[in-house]
Amino acid sequence: MRNVSIIGIGQTRVAEHWERSLRHLAGDAVLAAMKDAGIETADALYVGNMLSGLLTGQEHLGALVADFVGLRGIEAVKIEAACGSGAAALRLGYAAVAGGLHDYVIVCGVEKMTDTVNAETTTGLMMAADADYESVHGLSFVSINALLMRRYMYQYGVEHKDFAPFTVNAHRNAAGNANAMFQNPVTAEQFAHARMIAEPINLLDSSGIGDGAAAVVLCPTQIAREYRRGGLVHIKASSMATDAVAVHDRRDPLWLSAVEASTAKAYQQARVGPRDIDFFEVHDAFTIMSALSLEASGFAERGKGVWLGQNGDIVREGRIPICTMGGLKARGHPVGATGVYQVVEIVQQLRGEAGPNQIGNARLGMAQNIGGSGATVITHILEAQD
Amino acid sequence: MRNVSIIGIGQTRVAEHWERSLRHLAGDAVLAAMKDAGIETADALYVGNMLSGLLTGQEHLGALVADFVGLRGIEAVKIEAACGSGAAALRLGYAAVAGGLHDYVIVCGVEKMTDTVNAETTTGLMMAADADYESVHGLSFVSINALLMRRYMYQYGVEHKDFAPFTVNAHRNAAGNANAMFQNPVTAEQFAHARMIAEPINLLDSSGIGDGAAAVVLCPTQIAREYRRGGLVHIKASSMATDAVAVHDRRDPLWLSAVEASTAKAYQQARVGPRDIDFFEVHDAFTIMSALSLEASGFAERGKGVWLGQNGDIVREGRIPICTMGGLKARGHPVGATGVYQVVEIVQQLRGEAGPNQIGNARLGMAQNIGGSGATVITHILEAQD
Repeated sequence: MRNVSIIGIGQTRVAEHWERSLRHLAGDAVLAAMKDAGIETADALYVGNMLSGLLTGQEHLGALVADFVGLRGIEAVKIEAACGSGAAALRLGYAAVAGGLHDYVIVCGVEKMTDTVNAETTTGLMMAADADYESVHGLSFVSINALLMRRYMYQYGVEHKDFAPFTVNAHRNAAGNANAMFQNPVTAEQFAHARMIAEPINLLDSSGIGDGAAAVVLCPTQIAREYRRGGLVHIKASSMATDAVAVHDRRDPLWLSAVEASTAKAYQQARVGPRDIDFFEVHDAFTIMSALSLEASGFAERGKGVWLGQNGDIVREGRIPICTMGGLKARGHPVGATGVYQVVEIVQQLRGEAGPNQIGNARLGMAQNIGGSGATVITHILEAQD
Repeated sequence: MRNVSIIGIGQTRVAEHWERSLRHLAGDAVLAAMKDAGIETADALYVGNMLSGLLTGQEHLGALVADFVGLRGIEAVKIEAACGSGAAALRLGYAAVAGGLHDYVIVCGVEKMTDTVNAETTTGLMMAADADYESVHGLSFVSINALLMRRYMYQYGVEHKDFAPFTVNAHRNAAGNANAMFQNPVTAEQFAHARMIAEPINLLDSSGIGDGAAAVVLCPTQIAREYRRGGLVHIKASSMATDAVAVHDRRDPLWLSAVEASTAKAYQQARVGPRDIDFFEVHDAFTIMSALSLEASGFAERGKGVWLGQNGDIVREGRIPICTMGGLKARGHPVGATGVYQVVEIVQQLRGEAGPNQIGNARLGMAQNIGGSGATVITHILEAQD
């Protein structure tokens, strides 16, 4: 298979874009990525999205967005894997280029979660869980994560305040990201006293939902240099793994086996281990997901993920910086777009274009996008190309 | 890229399966296909589906179905391209195997359209059209096709009764297909007097919506023979093209340019022309779509597609048999599953397992799956392998 590079990136700010429809948001990101890459057409467009049908009455986003950006006629399709839709689209775009089906593939993640008319966003998000065995009991997506967090605290003797560093770090980093939804710093004190959502998860444990789109342009590494002199990024690994959708069906609710499997495959493909990763865009939909992801990805022992925050390991200057542009928590979590945002932000870091958030010696970045509470996990390892 | 074969097929009957949920339907088809192929695991599962979110409150079908069929852990994702979702999933499955990403990919199309609680199916289908410029005006998906049919009749001097052979042929063929929804023959007389839906489209111009699932197992041709002695089918071509979603945005509403582009690419890849195709599984969601598809695919001149029915060309004994197992019209059209049903039926013909519907000398079959009223078109050409 061929090596694949990212030659262009684009993104909108994550916000309540009441003046922009779904297609406008996607269009903004795709056209920015095409401009950044210096291409005027492409072979295919893969759109990651979860909620457009329920919330805006629009499916068929592939053809819709392709036409809107002036690419009428090309192969175009929507990919869905709950909140992992964005990275799932990237995974299939990567496969198409690596396998030789296409030379130029645009991957766009887009979500319109506010100003919706057809259904409530909370209802929409619950479609990531098991409709027959979880949603039917009145669980919300926050409450599923609350059950996990409560169990974690009980089993490992952790207190709620111990999760504060994840939120403080995310907001600190978002303050330096003009595309982030919440650019305000947050203190551990504010975290401790935030409004309760589903005990023990409070408002500041939770990522912010918003509207947004992000896009990347892929092509074979061999011809990537024709498009960019510097700033080339190589996809060193791409992997996906799954688990039971319903939490009660898993062997151990506190061990994200799909994270473990997806990360292991990615490490193997890239021939690296967790120690080689310079920074990690974690799927921090809730603080508990950060802790669990860090453990199953090999950055902390079981039950110790939360202490990476307390030890200062996760900040930009730390051992394994996470959420360097604000993460889902503070950049915002437009669910089907998030996986592409993560990768766009890694490219910013690897290019040295992360502004005030630039981390030192950024050579190898890992993005991990999760669908549901750990049922679909897509991991990408990206490397700065010389 | 590697050649890809289909080593297993599975399907449920298309019907109102009030006792089977979405995951049960998908499970039935996938397990049948795995048994037919003689495999016990796979590398990935790609699920084609359009409506599960709106109609059943369930997204995240990739992980859900993978787990349900005992394949917890594997790569799994949902692909959506409106009514073209099934073949779009097959296209990406084909790409993954052809490109070397995976050796064994299961592609499943599934749709649960009846006994829904969250929304009306008519509302769901309209998500294939443009929400901002078509749905908002109160158009239904039938009425969009009615506008096309009326224009066709006006422009080419065709009468409604001239479309009867499409329906008569489909029902005749469904009578020999135990998995078809409507196994009753229909006469031209019955067609002429069927209940009006959206003038000039009546009940018998329209395909039947239902619940159903179909699945295929793909692997590289090189190792396919390890799994089947006979009945191997080779995917000779796979292609996708798009057009504007909204009909008013197209250059010519009576010319399906995405059908033309998709078919042309498929012919080129397979190094064949329309004359080489032994039979054609047309996307006959409405009789007008059959006529338009036959024209843009090169089987009839512009405005003459309807006469292929009148001339007897489309029947099993004709020059270019279409909808040999009943088509969308009479096998039924569980939208996201349809594209996979078409391919399963072609495999049945190429294997010589089409029972009373077996056509003579079936060597090369073409399946064409359409999303929306022509906005996404996926074409596959399949060949019996010696």
